[in-house]
Amino acid sequence: MWLCRSGLIKMKFIFITLFPEFIADACNFSIIKRGREAGLFTVQSINPRDFTTDNHRTVDDTPCGGGAGMVLKVEPFFAALAAARALAPDALVVALTPAGEVLGQPRVEQLAHAQQDIIFLCGHYEGFDQRILDQADLKISIGDYVLTGGEMPALVMLDTLIRFIPGVLGKSESAMEESFSNNLLEYPQYTRPIEYQGKTVPDILLSGDHAKIKQWRLKEAIRTTYLLRPDLLAKANLSKGEGKLFLEVVAETKDKTNE
Amino acid sequence: MWLCRSGLIKMKFIFITLFPEFIADACNFSIIKRGREAGLFTVQSINPRDFTTDNHRTVDDTPCGGGAGMVLKVEPFFAALAAARALAPDALVVALTPAGEVLGQPRVEQLAHAQQDIIFLCGHYEGFDQRILDQADLKISIGDYVLTGGEMPALVMLDTLIRFIPGVLGKSESAMEESFSNNLLEYPQYTRPIEYQGKTVPDILLSGDHAKIKQWRLKEAIRTTYLLRPDLLAKANLSKGEGKLFLEVVAETKDKTNE
Repeated sequence: MWLCRSGLIKMKFIFITLFPEFIADACNFSIIKRGREAGLFTVQSINPRDFTTDNHRTVDDTPCGGGAGMVLKVEPFFAALAAARALAPDALVVALTPAGEVLGQPRVEQLAHAQQDIIFLCGHYEGFDQRILDQADLKISIGDYVLTGGEMPALVMLDTLIRFIPGVLGKSESAMEESFSNNLLEYPQYTRPIEYQGKTVPDILLSGDHAKIKQWRLKEAIRTTYLLRPDLLAKANLSKGEGKLFLEVVAETKDKTNE
Repeated sequence: MWLCRSGLIKMKFIFITLFPEFIADACNFSIIKRGREAGLFTVQSINPRDFTTDNHRTVDDTPCGGGAGMVLKVEPFFAALAAARALAPDALVVALTPAGEVLGQPRVEQLAHAQQDIIFLCGHYEGFDQRILDQADLKISIGDYVLTGGEMPALVMLDTLIRFIPGVLGKSESAMEESFSNNLLEYPQYTRPIEYQGKTVPDILLSGDHAKIKQWRLKEAIRTTYLLRPDLLAKANLSKGEGKLFLEVVAETKDKTNE
């Protein structure tokens, strides 16, 4: 648990969702399960359908102004949100929607360090009534693709966040936490066997020369990023030594192209 | 099922994962469940751990060249991949990795229309041995954030893809499929009640004037995109009429800023 002036902090994550079983199942695996069971944070779901008052338990209706599709209704979602706020009065309300800020690691780190409880507003199938979205403190999209609901994006966000809660990751896992933190993609990793089906581990990794290995890994990280995500490289704050490796990579790529 | 020259096509999705139960649970909800049960596609998992030969069923080992963390071993993943390829010989092998192409809707549409079976290579905790990644036809990242495994990204990708298989979405759902397809975010939607806790539906949507409503929605879609994702707007191929609405939005935003 996180220590702060007021004592122990245990982050609460509350999902407002029409599919609470989906969230419960997904939270029963891997680090989410382990962290929950260790009492490092809590996850619960509130179903807007439980707050409907009609016999059909209606959560959606046709759009004002016409058009196809259905729109999620304000009343059940407002009621579910009120119930969630009663459980976590200071929570940040995050709506998962294509019309949101695209999630990136800097935002993840900011939210993780704020240690504020989070209420995830998950739509499904249809869009939210805009008045529901207006309740959110933050609107997040996990990427530029169309999904069926906000549940998977919210789970993705949960996974990114809990990695920062001390104790959730084992020691060896924490050490792997490199991607995106310095705007370089990871260098290639290898493990035994040294040779398998004719495919071998690069000699340098077997040399025992730690300085050279470190240099090789840095250069390969720069190479991967240069070839795959030059946009990230533009944001990376390369040191003079890294800049030199970058120029080598560029020259080698050119040579390869001209071959 | 999709019709093509050779008859009926039923896409196969095979997950290579250390967490097959996670995949099975997640595929038991919403449109994934419905599509599976309607026989529109199949989902199955293959666990590399089932292909280990030692007593501890080891799937990882320390990195060659030293360093913290563990690396997923080639043998069990190669064997699992061979088993998957036996089930789907022409499948596209997609590895989920931070060092991949960032998923976007154009790639989703291309893969969906190709109707090729897909084998998802999901790492977990640690990185893959590079020789495993080298087996992939395509490396995909769902966004610039750090996740615990490839399972959620693969499920996100599955969700984006099956939406294109005829019959998976209901008629009303298909109609909502607008985000990103024209590089504009969606306009705000509203449904009854007209007034709730003092929050009202915009008058125009109640006017019954369909031409005006259409124009308002287009303008609001442009406004949302302009305010939130100007990068998308730059890619949108606006018509002359849309360009005029865009200029109005820019002027209104400036007025608001100067107020």
